Amino acid sequence: MTDSFVVVGGDAAGMSAASKAKRDDPDLEVVVFEKGEWVSYGACGLPYYVKGEIQSLEALVSVTPEEFREERDIDLRTGQEVVEIDPDAGTVTAEPVDGGESIVQPYDHLLIATGAEAIAPPIDGTDREGVYTLGSMSDGKELREYVARARSQETFQQPDRGPACQHLEECAGPVAVVGGGYIGIEMAEALAANGFEVNLFQRGDRVLKGFSEATSEAVADHLREEDVLVHLGADVLELAGDDAVETVVTDDGRIDVEMVLLGTGVRPRTALATDAGVELGPTGAIATDAYRETNVPDVYAAGDCAEATHTVTGEPVYVPLALTANRHGRAVGQTVAGTPTEGGSVAGTAAIKAFDVEAARTGIVDHEEATAAGFDPVTKTIDANSRAGYYPAGGTVTITLTADRETGRVLGASLVSEYGEGAVHRSHAIVGALAEEATVFDLENYDLAYAPPFNTTWDPVLVAAKVLSGALR
Amino acid sequence: MTDSFVVVGGDAAGMSAASKAKRDDPDLEVVVFEKGEWVSYGACGLPYYVKGEIQSLEALVSVTPEEFREERDIDLRTGQEVVEIDPDAGTVTAEPVDGGESIVQPYDHLLIATGAEAIAPPIDGTDREGVYTLGSMSDGKELREYVARARSQETFQQPDRGPACQHLEECAGPVAVVGGGYIGIEMAEALAANGFEVNLFQRGDRVLKGFSEATSEAVADHLREEDVLVHLGADVLELAGDDAVETVVTDDGRIDVEMVLLGTGVRPRTALATDAGVELGPTGAIATDAYRETNVPDVYAAGDCAEATHTVTGEPVYVPLALTANRHGRAVGQTVAGTPTEGGSVAGTAAIKAFDVEAARTGIVDHEEATAAGFDPVTKTIDANSRAGYYPAGGTVTITLTADRETGRVLGASLVSEYGEGAVHRSHAIVGALAEEATVFDLENYDLAYAPPFNTTWDPVLVAAKVLSGALR
Repeated sequence: MTDSFVVVGGDAAGMSAASKAKRDDPDLEVVVFEKGEWVSYGACGLPYYVKGEIQSLEALVSVTPEEFREERDIDLRTGQEVVEIDPDAGTVTAEPVDGGESIVQPYDHLLIATGAEAIAPPIDGTDREGVYTLGSMSDGKELREYVARARSQETFQQPDRGPACQHLEECAGPVAVVGGGYIGIEMAEALAANGFEVNLFQRGDRVLKGFSEATSEAVADHLREEDVLVHLGADVLELAGDDAVETVVTDDGRIDVEMVLLGTGVRPRTALATDAGVELGPTGAIATDAYRETNVPDVYAAGDCAEATHTVTGEPVYVPLALTANRHGRAVGQTVAGTPTEGGSVAGTAAIKAFDVEAARTGIVDHEEATAAGFDPVTKTIDANSRAGYYPAGGTVTITLTADRETGRVLGASLVSEYGEGAVHRSHAIVGALAEEATVFDLENYDLAYAPPFNTTWDPVLVAAKVLSGALR
Repeated sequence: MTDSFVVVGGDAAGMSAASKAKRDDPDLEVVVFEKGEWVSYGACGLPYYVKGEIQSLEALVSVTPEEFREERDIDLRTGQEVVEIDPDAGTVTAEPVDGGESIVQPYDHLLIATGAEAIAPPIDGTDREGVYTLGSMSDGKELREYVARARSQETFQQPDRGPACQHLEECAGPVAVVGGGYIGIEMAEALAANGFEVNLFQRGDRVLKGFSEATSEAVADHLREEDVLVHLGADVLELAGDDAVETVVTDDGRIDVEMVLLGTGVRPRTALATDAGVELGPTGAIATDAYRETNVPDVYAAGDCAEATHTVTGEPVYVPLALTANRHGRAVGQTVAGTPTEGGSVAGTAAIKAFDVEAARTGIVDHEEATAAGFDPVTKTIDANSRAGYYPAGGTVTITLTADRETGRVLGASLVSEYGEGAVHRSHAIVGALAEEATVFDLENYDLAYAPPFNTTWDPVLVAAKVLSGALR
């Protein structure tokens, strides 16, 4: 009899698993339940859709439902929400979102890939009209419509709506972005590019808190250069107004706005799993072994609903990012098709473009985090030319590199440069070093490619390693 | 009594060693002999000087002689050629190049950093007027003067001097570049950018023979797009003419030219060393141990005159490139200052920009070479989007990745993309994998940074690793 593999959730992890399982074992029956209408879409592209650089939501879809069904022979059921998992019976129960009878689907292997949802921050008034989040395709659609509406209003042509607008030919807003993480910053760019005066509120004392202070400062400075009003240390208490939001109330004052984008992070969607006896880990996401199998046999979890193992610490970590979802989903697909595959650890690597600046981070940069993991962290931050000093182009790459004092082991890095000057791709070398538990003495001897249009003889990564290894000797 | 460290040759390896030794041990007496007037210059920038993108030779100098003398307290003696090393006496004999008395200088530690010189290819007529090489600052000066002279001639304004010129508003030449390696291709770009019709002659069946065939083809195709006349499999027999070169004679015909640039490679300058009993290795360059010490005690060799150890094979290799010279020179400086330092192996990593294309290679790509080193090579070549498919910019990265069938160990890679699309910086990830003897199964799980403006969720490097690991399973 044919084995069946059921997947709950049709985005990166789910569709990677379904596709890989079916490719490796064409006899496997693969059924995917997705409560929405979109599958396998690039949520990371939504800010660029809102910005207007991408013209259709469809462009964000890498494989269409029809292609999954017809070309990949996957039984994809969109508009079906799984409401219960019964591990004893080996079944899931799904309900059509637009009504109709529920069905019970048996499984031999089950993947929970329910993703994440926006955190509801402890702020009053987040349910007001004009308050948006950006997690789903429909969120993206609503935001783009908002931008189009605002741009079509008469007031849009009036300059001097606020300090930032004085530099702009056209200006709308002001608007607010709450949260200085990836989404917050990408949306600040998207909105500013459309002529809005953007207020960015960050509760802590710097944006991009997972990055180094040097990176955070470089990005914040650049946001200000681009006329974003960056409010650091601003605890947003309330989004006030009648029906629609009119004012952002912080512990430091009140700023009138016409729209608010909440970019305050996500949390794993786990209710379906826990109801079925699936255990969560210390991060609050679904705990799994190295093969992404949960405590319940034959029930796997991958993507934004699940934990991963940290490359440096070996401890559970929750890093809901696209590559992990793809990689772990694919590994589960390969495993259920007969080749047990781990899918690997995560280093918390991330990249961001903010206007004309790019930044990346990987591993452990924060000293408290490193100390808690049993390391004795030493950090150096360097500025280096991105290309040969005499080459008629180029900028500066700023690299913060952290290693363990006793062993010299590379623990993490944060890099920032002008967009196009290679901070992000240069982080690849450090990711490799982390994966292989290399020391900074190893890293400084990496035989990295050099030519004047691409770097200095010692690539900035090597400069950072040299300086840090000097401090450890 | 103060120890003395004598360095022969004042370019990358020599000045790196001198600077590091003096910094680590300020009591050390550091003497550098350099027969020319220039020290510590970026020879890699010469093509861009000839092209006209860099306006002065001085711009290529990273540290001036005065700075070495006054700020770094190094006894730098330019215009002094070392003509003999006497290891028994522990002395070198130097002669002023413009005449005068020779001096004998004692040493406790000696570094031979005599560099490389252009190979004299087996071609008749290479001593004719109008035949150039590009190894030294004076070579660069002469070539730039040639370009200026040619551009000032009346004929320069006449189109239709040849097929390539039909696409150009202005055209001079035709000229010839012999050799399709780094220098040949960079000079083809420099000359074409100045309006010359460029004939590029390559003896073998492809340019950039250390790269993969896919890379070579992509670069050759692009050279043709840029109106370079690429002659593959062309064995140049003679540079004919009266006094000056007028015709390139190949086994396949004759092409009239006004100038010839020889880019047929370099060989190590070793006569001074061998006269003193220093042994050469199998590559013909100076043999050293891991600390760059030769068979003669306290005599070190580094840079373009010396061998290095290959990262993948562990065997001696001759790869005369700038980073190795800097790294090994610096290691020697650190060693003689009291901290024995190896300086590391080389993976033969190299990068090149050719007009609007960039390419890099590292490790072992060639199957014959891999087989000779005891591996069973398997190679895959992939094309991947350089950025998210929906992102409004980007191109294609083509990656050739090679691994050992039995162990999965990554052996090498060759990458090519449009300039700015990241082939070169992406090679960093693979250099790390080579340094750490990682397998392709490790590499495919590297947690590389991702965001839509920089790559697809699976960076092209990961796509290549996935495809190759699939072929090995």
